Amino acid sequence: MLTRIDHVGIACRDLAEKIAFYESAFGLTVVSREVNEQQGVSEAMLHVADGPAGSSYVQLLQPLGPDTPVGRFIERRGEGMHHIGYGVADVTAALATLGEQGIRLIDERPRHGSMGAAIAFLHPSGMGGVLTELVQATSREGQVSGR
Amino acid sequence: MLTRIDHVGIACRDLAEKIAFYESAFGLTVVSREVNEQQGVSEAMLHVADGPAGSSYVQLLQPLGPDTPVGRFIERRGEGMHHIGYGVADVTAALATLGEQGIRLIDERPRHGSMGAAIAFLHPSGMGGVLTELVQATSREGQVSGR
Repeated sequence: MLTRIDHVGIACRDLAEKIAFYESAFGLTVVSREVNEQQGVSEAMLHVADGPAGSSYVQLLQPLGPDTPVGRFIERRGEGMHHIGYGVADVTAALATLGEQGIRLIDERPRHGSMGAAIAFLHPSGMGGVLTELVQATSREGQVSGR
Repeated sequence: MLTRIDHVGIACRDLAEKIAFYESAFGLTVVSREVNEQQGVSEAMLHVADGPAGSSYVQLLQPLGPDTPVGRFIERRGEGMHHIGYGVADVTAALATLGEQGIRLIDERPRHGSMGAAIAFLHPSGMGGVLTELVQATSREGQVSGR
């Protein structure tokens, strides 16, 4: 079902500062910046590598305010890893398969994610504490070229 | 510097139970099981995907006891994501480059990691709360075939 590790999502207080850090320390490059009002974040995708099933990224997430999921995460646990995103070929089919197994879903249907992807979250309570995201990229071609 | 996302390290209380979950939910396959006394863990590597610079994995980590780094992590924060591991071509060179930038290292020199890799950890205090591991696999050939 999983085609790759798509990204690691990292919660931070200062997006610009953290982007600068990842650029200078590791030589990563920002390929997308977005504000996602629905998720309450300002975010950046930094390209790590390309693979046969798509690219992988570090996703930096700054909450738009304290009363957002990422804002509450930072308040409770501090900055750090927030979730892991895996690539899937068909997120709707993956949700159906996981739902049939009784795995607790946050999203029953896909929603809008970074760079036009269709994404869905699985609840950490059913995943051993790991907030897990499934990512169906817009197109394979788009993915590999960095979208 | 980073060639891929090598793995996400997930701390769990019951390795066998968690392996069974990832196998049945996602169809992942265990490619390695090890006990690492130095790190105080019993661990499994589950293969996610292959790429041009090597493979990527879910790494499940069960502490050998409460007074180990992963044991204390679970006591403090519960089960969940413990660290992220990035592939590098040369971990000694990467440590030198990062050290010159003043980034706080846990390991000044590489040590033994999963599946014969040379690995080193960067301190989360300098990484925005993210325990970060660098992974130089034993050989590119070995990596791609699953070692």
